[in-house]
Amino acid sequence: MSLRDIETRFIHALSLHRRKKHRVHQDLTKAHELYQISTMSVLMEGLYDGHTTYEKLAEHGNFGLGTFNSLDGEMIAFDGSFYQILADGKARLVEPSMKTPFAVVIFFEPDIQLDLPNRMPWHEFEILLKQVAPSHLVFYAIRLEGTFEYIKLRNVTRQQEPYAPLGDIVRGFPVLELRHVKGTMVGFRCPDYSSGINVPGYHLHFLDEERETGGHVMTCTANGVRLQIDHTFNLRMEIPEMFVFDEQARRQPPGEGQSGTAGR
Amino acid sequence: MSLRDIETRFIHALSLHRRKKHRVHQDLTKAHELYQISTMSVLMEGLYDGHTTYEKLAEHGNFGLGTFNSLDGEMIAFDGSFYQILADGKARLVEPSMKTPFAVVIFFEPDIQLDLPNRMPWHEFEILLKQVAPSHLVFYAIRLEGTFEYIKLRNVTRQQEPYAPLGDIVRGFPVLELRHVKGTMVGFRCPDYSSGINVPGYHLHFLDEERETGGHVMTCTANGVRLQIDHTFNLRMEIPEMFVFDEQARRQPPGEGQSGTAGR
Repeated sequence: MSLRDIETRFIHALSLHRRKKHRVHQDLTKAHELYQISTMSVLMEGLYDGHTTYEKLAEHGNFGLGTFNSLDGEMIAFDGSFYQILADGKARLVEPSMKTPFAVVIFFEPDIQLDLPNRMPWHEFEILLKQVAPSHLVFYAIRLEGTFEYIKLRNVTRQQEPYAPLGDIVRGFPVLELRHVKGTMVGFRCPDYSSGINVPGYHLHFLDEERETGGHVMTCTANGVRLQIDHTFNLRMEIPEMFVFDEQARRQPPGEGQSGTAGR
Repeated sequence: MSLRDIETRFIHALSLHRRKKHRVHQDLTKAHELYQISTMSVLMEGLYDGHTTYEKLAEHGNFGLGTFNSLDGEMIAFDGSFYQILADGKARLVEPSMKTPFAVVIFFEPDIQLDLPNRMPWHEFEILLKQVAPSHLVFYAIRLEGTFEYIKLRNVTRQQEPYAPLGDIVRGFPVLELRHVKGTMVGFRCPDYSSGINVPGYHLHFLDEERETGGHVMTCTANGVRLQIDHTFNLRMEIPEMFVFDEQARRQPPGEGQSGTAGR
């Protein structure tokens, strides 16, 4: 199949998808949309404690990625299961009562499926994806399943209050390298215009076939994977309201009451 | 009332609002959210023809601002009425069948109301608003009603295809100055993280008391206005799907069929 064939196939899938979406458009709870808690830039500031439980999050999608309160692990979700991957790369199922300060989910309904039998370093994969997913306006959800020759992962580490901004601590997060591993990669390619709210470009998390090891993907070389792609034009975003109280507390040192001077 | 009193009042209003919102949260069609068609950065690219009618837009809010297909005027909405302000500053009611490529609306439910009797240049007004609306995480909707000593407006001009990017044409838009005018200013203050999708900081449109003259506000000096502020933590955004076909058409010159070479 030539790349142009793939592009044509995308446009066809788009038309189908459009009709499909319009059928359910009246029911907003089922609109095919990307749903996110908080924004990447707000997470970067160090607002690591949200109030959204995974039980609640799962109402908005069965596929995606994110993190946990106190930055206690990377989250990956697919086939309706949510996993927590700790700093050492070890994975376990998420408890519904656990909370997230940042997550991005969708009900995954792939438009396109391609088998990529050959060895494919990340930069070649990006060239292919640019053809399969050509729009710079659309949010794409991506699933890769199969064998990876190499994966480099980096996982967040549980933080203690007072929280430091993410940029100050990211270099200390442990890096993990996997070779000749089977598993599932899940994530998104977001438009450049989403730079303030999400991660423009690719953001992928990985979990191995045994559901034991995974993390945030830094780079990889696939070698025989199935690619599935979904897309949406719709984004819904909720900033946790309690973040405003955290923000207020930071501006008002402990012990200072309502008698402080005005106009600081 | 001191500025600290105002800040305390905001936090109180926030708590009230939170309870109010939680009551209707199950019904997403009535969730108190900012709703926008497209993004400012996509509009900037020259994608000036959307498919959303004002009839449809009004389902998502009765208050806000935006523009029209072909960039044919500034839109201002309040009290449930939508107005189109043409390049010469003349206003008329919007027909429900008219379409928009970019608009931001909300169902306006102000938390805070303040009478500002004194003369207030824009920079002083900004200082006050920073106290009344202190969060850098929240989307604020703002309404100002009363007398303005001075307002400088600039209005978009209807464009012909092929459309040029907004940055290339904005300097040619007519500027209008009003003095000692009564009317209504409507708009938003959006967080910095919304820079790619909306206008970070203030974005306000104005319409005079006679509903005859208005436009996009560049600066103003108030002199006896009532300020009302609403806020939300929720954003819903829809990119018009047809934009992808426009995007595709731009990459594929007219007359070129499916036989084009692959991998361009």
